[in-house]
Amino acid sequence: MNYPNGIKKQENTSPITYRNRGMSLESDINESNEYYREIDKAYIYKKPTPVKIVKVNYPSRDKAVITEAYYTIPSTTDYNGLYKGKYIDFEAKETKNKTAFPLANIHSHQIKHIKNIYNHQGIVFLIVRFIHYNETYLLLGKDFLEFIEKESRKSIPYSFFQQKGYLIKDGYRPRIDYLKIVDTIIGGI
Amino acid sequence: MNYPNGIKKQENTSPITYRNRGMSLESDINESNEYYREIDKAYIYKKPTPVKIVKVNYPSRDKAVITEAYYTIPSTTDYNGLYKGKYIDFEAKETKNKTAFPLANIHSHQIKHIKNIYNHQGIVFLIVRFIHYNETYLLLGKDFLEFIEKESRKSIPYSFFQQKGYLIKDGYRPRIDYLKIVDTIIGGI
Repeated sequence: MNYPNGIKKQENTSPITYRNRGMSLESDINESNEYYREIDKAYIYKKPTPVKIVKVNYPSRDKAVITEAYYTIPSTTDYNGLYKGKYIDFEAKETKNKTAFPLANIHSHQIKHIKNIYNHQGIVFLIVRFIHYNETYLLLGKDFLEFIEKESRKSIPYSFFQQKGYLIKDGYRPRIDYLKIVDTIIGGI
Repeated sequence: MNYPNGIKKQENTSPITYRNRGMSLESDINESNEYYREIDKAYIYKKPTPVKIVKVNYPSRDKAVITEAYYTIPSTTDYNGLYKGKYIDFEAKETKNKTAFPLANIHSHQIKHIKNIYNHQGIVFLIVRFIHYNETYLLLGKDFLEFIEKESRKSIPYSFFQQKGYLIKDGYRPRIDYLKIVDTIIGGI
């Protein structure tokens, strides 16, 4: 059984290694957003995976089973919501690459979306995890767009994240407190 | 072939009645949001239909076919986005009922979501179409929540929409210019 957010029941027999607790960036963010909702801090959600539904069966009156569907390319970013009256919007990606974040990870219409949100005073950013270093950076839409416009390369160097990005510390709850960084950006408390 | 937003190719043989041009509220809103994006006015999207994916086949390396999935109850509203730097959030429903809008149309966690967004200074509302009258109303989250808290009835009377709601006129492009009403609410131009 595959749950939508990739949660799997851990086998009791498998050894626990603290390096790989099975916590992907996506589940870290989902857990953090849940925590923010619990403490009534922010209402930020992951959008459902976009799927094109082709065939649906109705074995009984109130139960529909989708029997043919396809993943479709998202036209926006994965996460958006509301924090302190502000519109928040971001995309989250992890990479195994040690030296750079490949831009193939972000679709062209997602880049356009980031630009639109930035131009219309939304708070927009990327959260990028470099798995090798176990480091998670928040990169502002503004800095991301400046890079894209100036550079013709197909990836953003790791060093660019070190210079321009904000390192998000791991925590217990929330696991990644990215709103702490948003606070410094919006000049909040 | 069932398209996600319910668009069906019109048979040439069927008589065209202007009363039922086949334009559901959802397609009217989708078209209006598209228009708002085209003229760079607002970036408001319908969230993908939430689906729990159970089985996926990979007939070839780059093609995934979902062969078993189920519709799941949405935890938030269907539409959200950004307009003039503000967070916009709404749910859209149509009813054939002539006298009232049945509250069974809005899930309890959607009501909670509307409350959260309202409390955190988001612009949140319902768009409700009474099909019988061909009237579409914008009802502010504030007024909706006040009704829910005061009244124990299972539906909102049509007269409540006439009193508290904002009638959205039909148009050509956008088909329903609900942001015009949002303008009066936020006091913008």
